Amino acid sequence: MSTPWSHRYAQRTKYIKSSAIRELLKLTQRPEVISFAGGLPAPEVFPIKEFSEACQRVLAEKGKEALQYGATEGYGPLRELIAANMMRYGIVATPDNVMLTSGSQQALDLIAKLLINRGDRILIEAPTYLGALQAFAVFGAEYVSVPIDHDGLRTDLLDEALRSGPKFMYLLPNFQNPGGVTLSRERREELVYMSNKYGVPIIEDDPYGQLRYEGEHVPPLVMMDRVNLRRDYEYKLGNVIYMSTFSKTLAPGLRLGWIVAPPDVIAKLVQLKQGADLHTSTFNQIVTYEVAKNGFLDEHAKQIRTVYRERRDAMLAALDEFFPEEVTWTRPQGGLFLWVTLPNKMDSEELFNTALKNNVAFVPGTSFYPEGEEGKRHMRLNFSYMECDRIHEGVRRLSVAVKSQMERNGVAVPQMV
Amino acid sequence: MSTPWSHRYAQRTKYIKSSAIRELLKLTQRPEVISFAGGLPAPEVFPIKEFSEACQRVLAEKGKEALQYGATEGYGPLRELIAANMMRYGIVATPDNVMLTSGSQQALDLIAKLLINRGDRILIEAPTYLGALQAFAVFGAEYVSVPIDHDGLRTDLLDEALRSGPKFMYLLPNFQNPGGVTLSRERREELVYMSNKYGVPIIEDDPYGQLRYEGEHVPPLVMMDRVNLRRDYEYKLGNVIYMSTFSKTLAPGLRLGWIVAPPDVIAKLVQLKQGADLHTSTFNQIVTYEVAKNGFLDEHAKQIRTVYRERRDAMLAALDEFFPEEVTWTRPQGGLFLWVTLPNKMDSEELFNTALKNNVAFVPGTSFYPEGEEGKRHMRLNFSYMECDRIHEGVRRLSVAVKSQMERNGVAVPQMV
Repeated sequence: MSTPWSHRYAQRTKYIKSSAIRELLKLTQRPEVISFAGGLPAPEVFPIKEFSEACQRVLAEKGKEALQYGATEGYGPLRELIAANMMRYGIVATPDNVMLTSGSQQALDLIAKLLINRGDRILIEAPTYLGALQAFAVFGAEYVSVPIDHDGLRTDLLDEALRSGPKFMYLLPNFQNPGGVTLSRERREELVYMSNKYGVPIIEDDPYGQLRYEGEHVPPLVMMDRVNLRRDYEYKLGNVIYMSTFSKTLAPGLRLGWIVAPPDVIAKLVQLKQGADLHTSTFNQIVTYEVAKNGFLDEHAKQIRTVYRERRDAMLAALDEFFPEEVTWTRPQGGLFLWVTLPNKMDSEELFNTALKNNVAFVPGTSFYPEGEEGKRHMRLNFSYMECDRIHEGVRRLSVAVKSQMERNGVAVPQMV
Repeated sequence: MSTPWSHRYAQRTKYIKSSAIRELLKLTQRPEVISFAGGLPAPEVFPIKEFSEACQRVLAEKGKEALQYGATEGYGPLRELIAANMMRYGIVATPDNVMLTSGSQQALDLIAKLLINRGDRILIEAPTYLGALQAFAVFGAEYVSVPIDHDGLRTDLLDEALRSGPKFMYLLPNFQNPGGVTLSRERREELVYMSNKYGVPIIEDDPYGQLRYEGEHVPPLVMMDRVNLRRDYEYKLGNVIYMSTFSKTLAPGLRLGWIVAPPDVIAKLVQLKQGADLHTSTFNQIVTYEVAKNGFLDEHAKQIRTVYRERRDAMLAALDEFFPEEVTWTRPQGGLFLWVTLPNKMDSEELFNTALKNNVAFVPGTSFYPEGEEGKRHMRLNFSYMECDRIHEGVRRLSVAVKSQMERNGVAVPQMV
């Protein structure tokens, strides 16, 4: 339908991807569907009691401040708490390096708005976070894709990719979304070295850093950058902008994320944020500060890790139990997702439709590449949202859809017990 | 200081205005300063008790939903409530015409992102809302300015302005920020006629619509557009996109605004919002719905009007009492601001500095024009935030600064008692 507006937005909407998948995903919300499609935290672990008490306290003690306009850069004590937490993880930051955002999706939007001009190339992992592609594309971004394997970004391919002159790299080093893989320490060192060598800075997106279920913590790029390469800037942040969120460790419904960056970048982002939404909800920031302070965040993350580890294990076990051996998947050490690779000739979008008829859902791999085609053999499975018995049953249903497509497409299916 | 990022953001930040005034305004937060500078609601009228009860209820009854991710377009029952309220004010809207935003500042950002390409001209009132200039400028907007007088936008100058081919008009018809004036019914009729004639659609920004202290309600443009010109589209919205906010009737710290637009525009805005912040805080939307439902919003607006009318009257009386007759000001029938015009040769930025030494603050008129110069003879005064005795004392202090500048600049000051 044409309206007085349609020809006026035609130029911008050229950059907006079709929302076909978005429409399909709405179907996954039917209660009979076991959905591995979303990236939803388990609501069973939301700290509802703590939030309820904090709301009471905040409104009783500082209601006038909490309901009033606030500073664009964020609530002071929360910026301090974030800076202090960053320090504990080896990231040198003061509150002046920290800006609160309306979820880390807004961090992506503001960074894109600040840095991307039409036609700029951004170096991304292939596959990468769908929301980043959305945030970048609207400013006319183009992409240089570097594949990942079980150790994360293939740094052996980085040299050539960096020569093409990308404006920055956008990377998820921990428990990547959607890949589920973690960038190894050796590759991190190589990466920050290359970033420095070619003068291509890094956006490090770390929503799941606190959700490691096994293996050893690997330091974030923002810290390696400082330690390995920039001793002369001991107390400054330079080449890496770091971002994270409270969505996975407390609750996503609050929309609270943050950016850690050099002060000049923070100053520019604050100006853009002022024009974008003035500031993030004062109330949510103060309540979150009240909940998070005094070590609750660490305690709570332990509980989340226990629940999610169990669910990851349930999914891995079910995949082993039901899936044919031609299908492979990643074994994430943390985070919310694993990434399944189907045999040649398979099409995950077609599979999505069959699966939905079997009342099970996932996100087809095509959503995680600028050009969808590459993702046809992949699907992303979320293991955080569903309880273990539902995971088991969902993977069983999914295996039926997979096998039936394999048969239809002439991919040999071995006899399973 | 140069960082690895500075030359990368140089292109975008050309469009960001210097933040000199922002820095100055920080000084107005000293407790000894009586500030007429902000646009802050009175915290005394925040419904703190109601919010506290709603938080308890929401977290107890639907905590898992309230803390989880939500729909990009907004919480269903809140969209219904907004649509129903719009209907009461003569605006035909269904929930499908409504999208929630993170404050109405985000509405401006998303509309700008959707519609403005570099070099597009936007028709604005001169002066206009500073936040709109910020939101538009970052996408490379240029402006066609049409002056206002006591009856709002000078529609007699509209013909020429529209001939220059602006992409849309951005207007605040009620109790304009910063002018304090209201667009008369006759001019509204002319405006929607002209909008239709030249095919230039309208963004109608109405944050203060519920805050009328005297005079008769004048229908919004979005309604007049439908009633007067588009009978053939009885149940569709067309030429006017309407936006408003809960910031002035409930509390700004929640960051909740909304857009009412044709469904095709809503669909595109939803896609942009998904990339911008996924969605607005689920918790804040559900809590606000709980507070606002069952008629509380109307009851509460009455209370706010009583308080603000008193403060407006206190400011008008103090201006009459203290200000020299060479200075004039608007007499707003509602809203939060009035607009002061100084004699020739006066400079409101210079005056700001003198005033601040006298511990009183305002926003110099220069902030409300794309080219500041035009605003030198003006200042915006807010009357909602300070209590009546502080308003009286603040206007007295301000009058001292005004008179001393008038003397210095050789503007005759009559003897005041």
